[in-house]
Amino acid sequence: MNYSIREAKKEDMKQVLHLIHELALFEKEPNAVEVTVNDLISDGFGTHKLFHCFVAESGNEIVGTALVYTRYSTWKGVVLHLEDLIVTKKMRGTGLGTLLLNEVVKYGYELGVKRICWEVLDWNDPAINFYESKGADVKRDWDVVHLDENGIQNFIKNI
Amino acid sequence: MNYSIREAKKEDMKQVLHLIHELALFEKEPNAVEVTVNDLISDGFGTHKLFHCFVAESGNEIVGTALVYTRYSTWKGVVLHLEDLIVTKKMRGTGLGTLLLNEVVKYGYELGVKRICWEVLDWNDPAINFYESKGADVKRDWDVVHLDENGIQNFIKNI
Repeated sequence: MNYSIREAKKEDMKQVLHLIHELALFEKEPNAVEVTVNDLISDGFGTHKLFHCFVAESGNEIVGTALVYTRYSTWKGVVLHLEDLIVTKKMRGTGLGTLLLNEVVKYGYELGVKRICWEVLDWNDPAINFYESKGADVKRDWDVVHLDENGIQNFIKNI
Repeated sequence: MNYSIREAKKEDMKQVLHLIHELALFEKEPNAVEVTVNDLISDGFGTHKLFHCFVAESGNEIVGTALVYTRYSTWKGVVLHLEDLIVTKKMRGTGLGTLLLNEVVKYGYELGVKRICWEVLDWNDPAINFYESKGADVKRDWDVVHLDENGIQNFIKNI
C-alpha cells in the first residue's frame, strides 16, 4: 500500500484524535481521552508548541501517527519523549511503525538528545518485541506512577 | 530538625547536583549522571526554562529537592511530571518527602493539570508505599522504555 510520512498539519488533528481514541480502546481505557480536536490544534500549533507530530498518510487518510515532545533528565539533560506511536489496525504489519519510529529517532538525533524514551504496557508483546528489535531497552523494573485529577484534589484537601 | 521548603535558586544547583548523584548511586547507576552544574543553571534558569525546582534547606545545606516539568498527554492535555524527589539519606523519615511532594502537588494544582506523573523502581518499596499512601496509582503494567545514546546512533546507521 502506498503511504507517505510527513509532519502533521492542523487539519490532520481530527484524524489524529481518532487514532488516539483507537489506541485508548486497545489499551482498555476507552473513556480516558478528554483531549479535543481544538486542544490538539491549540497545543500543537500555537505560539508555544507543546508537542511535535508526524503522520502517515495513505490517500486522504491518516493511518498512523507519532507524537513527541522534549523532557528533562537530571542525568542526561534534554531528552525526547515519544508519547504515542499509533498505526491503525488495518495497517499493522506493513512496516509503517518502523517508518514512523525512523522519523522520531531522526528528529531526536537532529535535536542532539542523549535519550529517546517512552512507555509500554507489559502485556503488549508485539510492541515490546518491535522496540527491542530496534535496540530499545524495556526497563521492566521501572513503573509509571499517576496521581490523577481526583487524586490531586484529595491530596490538596489533606495538606 | 529545622528546615524550610522554597523555590530553588541558581546558587543551589551545586548541592542539587550532589543529591542527583546520591539518587543515581541509590538506583545502582553511579556513572549515569552526565549533567553538570552549569547545565542545571542554564537549563533551569535561562530564558527558556526546562524545569522547575524546589529545595528543602536546613541551615545552609540543601537536604532535599523536587524537580518537575510539564509534559503532554494525548488523553489529558498538559500534565506535570515529577522527575526527581530526593531526600538526602540522613533526613529520610523526617517528613521531608511529604513536604516536598506537597509543594509539587500544589504547583500542579495551580497549573490546573489533570495528572501528575512520575516513575519508580519496582524494588523501591519505601517509595512505593509512600506514593500509594498519598493516593498515587503505581501502574505496575506500564514499563519505561529507553533508547540511549548508543541506541540512537546504531538506529540512525541502520535506517
